[in-house]
Amino acid sequence: MPVNLSAPRSSDLHPVPGVRIGVAEAGIRKANRKDLTVVLIDEGASVAGVFTQNRFCAAPVQVCREHLAQGRGIRAMVINTGNANAGTGEDGLVRARATCIALARRLELAPEQILPFSTGVIMEPLPHERIEAGLPAALADAAADHWLRAAEGIMTTDTVPKAFSAQATIGGATVSITGISKGAGMIRPNMATMLGFMATDAQVAPAVMQQLAKELADGSFNRVTVDGDTSTNDSFVVIATNRARHAPITSLDSAEGQALKAAMLAIARQLAQAIVRDGEGATKFIAIQVEGGGTGEECRQVAYAIAHSPLVKTAFFASDPNLGRILAAVGYAGIADLDQTKIDLYLDDVRVAVQGGRDPAYREEDGQRVMKQSEITVRVALGRGTAADTVWTCDLSHDYVSINADYRS
Amino acid sequence: MPVNLSAPRSSDLHPVPGVRIGVAEAGIRKANRKDLTVVLIDEGASVAGVFTQNRFCAAPVQVCREHLAQGRGIRAMVINTGNANAGTGEDGLVRARATCIALARRLELAPEQILPFSTGVIMEPLPHERIEAGLPAALADAAADHWLRAAEGIMTTDTVPKAFSAQATIGGATVSITGISKGAGMIRPNMATMLGFMATDAQVAPAVMQQLAKELADGSFNRVTVDGDTSTNDSFVVIATNRARHAPITSLDSAEGQALKAAMLAIARQLAQAIVRDGEGATKFIAIQVEGGGTGEECRQVAYAIAHSPLVKTAFFASDPNLGRILAAVGYAGIADLDQTKIDLYLDDVRVAVQGGRDPAYREEDGQRVMKQSEITVRVALGRGTAADTVWTCDLSHDYVSINADYRS
Repeated sequence: MPVNLSAPRSSDLHPVPGVRIGVAEAGIRKANRKDLTVVLIDEGASVAGVFTQNRFCAAPVQVCREHLAQGRGIRAMVINTGNANAGTGEDGLVRARATCIALARRLELAPEQILPFSTGVIMEPLPHERIEAGLPAALADAAADHWLRAAEGIMTTDTVPKAFSAQATIGGATVSITGISKGAGMIRPNMATMLGFMATDAQVAPAVMQQLAKELADGSFNRVTVDGDTSTNDSFVVIATNRARHAPITSLDSAEGQALKAAMLAIARQLAQAIVRDGEGATKFIAIQVEGGGTGEECRQVAYAIAHSPLVKTAFFASDPNLGRILAAVGYAGIADLDQTKIDLYLDDVRVAVQGGRDPAYREEDGQRVMKQSEITVRVALGRGTAADTVWTCDLSHDYVSINADYRS
Repeated sequence: MPVNLSAPRSSDLHPVPGVRIGVAEAGIRKANRKDLTVVLIDEGASVAGVFTQNRFCAAPVQVCREHLAQGRGIRAMVINTGNANAGTGEDGLVRARATCIALARRLELAPEQILPFSTGVIMEPLPHERIEAGLPAALADAAADHWLRAAEGIMTTDTVPKAFSAQATIGGATVSITGISKGAGMIRPNMATMLGFMATDAQVAPAVMQQLAKELADGSFNRVTVDGDTSTNDSFVVIATNRARHAPITSLDSAEGQALKAAMLAIARQLAQAIVRDGEGATKFIAIQVEGGGTGEECRQVAYAIAHSPLVKTAFFASDPNLGRILAAVGYAGIADLDQTKIDLYLDDVRVAVQGGRDPAYREEDGQRVMKQSEITVRVALGRGTAADTVWTCDLSHDYVSINADYRS
């Protein structure tokens, strides 16, 4: 059961002029399943992406990086579920490229104008011929209002399709922003693989697209964690179709740049948080705010130490206000000169620890009340400076173990 | 159920001349429980310790460091379960010191000659008056052959007492080496706290004791992990009573120094591995060997990434040869220039991946056979150099979640 997350309605998702989406059943791993999605992008769009830092990155991630670097203008994306094409060596690269070549041929483009994405079981050869055979049906399905179909088409064991959408006014023009994501919940491959795609018809100069993609990822997908396992396939792609009638954004520091980024970040956060809300076995959604740090980096170090601690995560699952586990995680986060006597800890608005010790005014029933909620904010004040950052995560439940211990039958 | 670990017999544990141990029921948290242990050390011993790196270290850890730094000659240790005296601020230091003062008074020693250790529930005031009231009974119980009682006396939710012993010939003299440990399995405090104590009657110059303690810890306790949570109270103390009739060891590089260290390391490893075998919910004991690294540090980085991955650990629990999870953990271990095409992976002697891809000769049934064992060796060859290191861990089971989600009632 996802935490406070319901399926989007197609009518709530704004089409993005210049983007069309088609979905098909290609039988990649199982029959009768929408497992192939094609995204068609009109000429003239700006496209950028950020990808997994995992050195064991999947073949499609390597091909995406190559094709984006070529700079020939990305015109389509091909996304399959059922097979991640990871841990597949040189042969995996050949197969990923084959899907690009096949789609490029049908669209009369160069293969370097296609970005491939795969998610699913790993260390098995990608059945690229099934993808190629499914392309005609996917292309025939292409339409501007198929975002919900795409959100469904990229699901693996996500329990809810994830799509968010908004409109904003940029330079006097109304622009649409729509995105989809998939996340943590892949029983078969037994690996959490995050994919996120966003599109807007706003005009963004190619020169600032990479910065935009990176800043959006840093404020959203790079701030969520389910189990700390960085997948081989994580990909986040941002498309600006440049169709809206406003002056092109050439700097994110301009008023228009800031407005667009803020609007897109709101959607990116919803997409990223939806992954946590639908995390494997999640029963709670937890924001970990760390403030008073010397740098943002050390705030994140502390936040991730808390977010990744199995002891903290099981305490959340149990609704147990086990403050010691949180303080212990702060202590081993790797800040060498941390002074424990300056640390305060809050569960929502309840101060539970002050100056490194239990708050004399703290009553366990207050902590208990907060821990029983489905959404909890943990706030740590480090007393070292003025930096702050937030990470979102979920608890560690029996279902997490069940889902991941389930043999790939 | 611990993994291949049975309770020691008292008759297998060699007394160490110069060390006596007494245990008592002090009612620190619960009645009718051996919760207070006193270790008495004859004058003239060399003592050294290594302690948690957690910045939120417990009060007794801080007092131990102070007292060892004073160098007045450690003559006794006082160890309680039921309360960790961690996250207790200045008041916790006062209470830890009070137990040292009380024991010192009874033994006509200086408080700085006492080392205090606490393990149990955290962020609650140490009931030091109960410890003080229990001292007479513990002292009356003191005897050289009470090592098993001590192993039992420091248990919290360990399911088996942990004690190992051996004799070695050093410089023509027979020396005894005996140690005890406790580990991961504390439902109440909900925090894994590791304590290890070793003693030998070998003669070791005080100048090399710290190096000996550190090297023993590095080869044993610092190479095991249950859940990656570094506790606030971890302590490991080594005592050499200097009673054996051989020339004092003034260098660990001498033949005698090497022989003693090897013999002590064997015991330290057994003590450390016993903690993993009795880890919370453990059903499998797993050695992670990483070889072919550029440095030992990067081998450990990779080994810990594998050992801490919840996805890998649940796969072990499920006996699922899910190779992708292991390779993914290698990939995100943080080695920036790792070349995935040089990596081989073995489960025991079965090569499952070669040059970063699935071994063509690998059959799933072979991997399955190894994964079903209760003891498994994962071997990763990085193909970057000649360094190697090993980390020991256990799997992540439903019982881990149950144990740690159990509310502190």
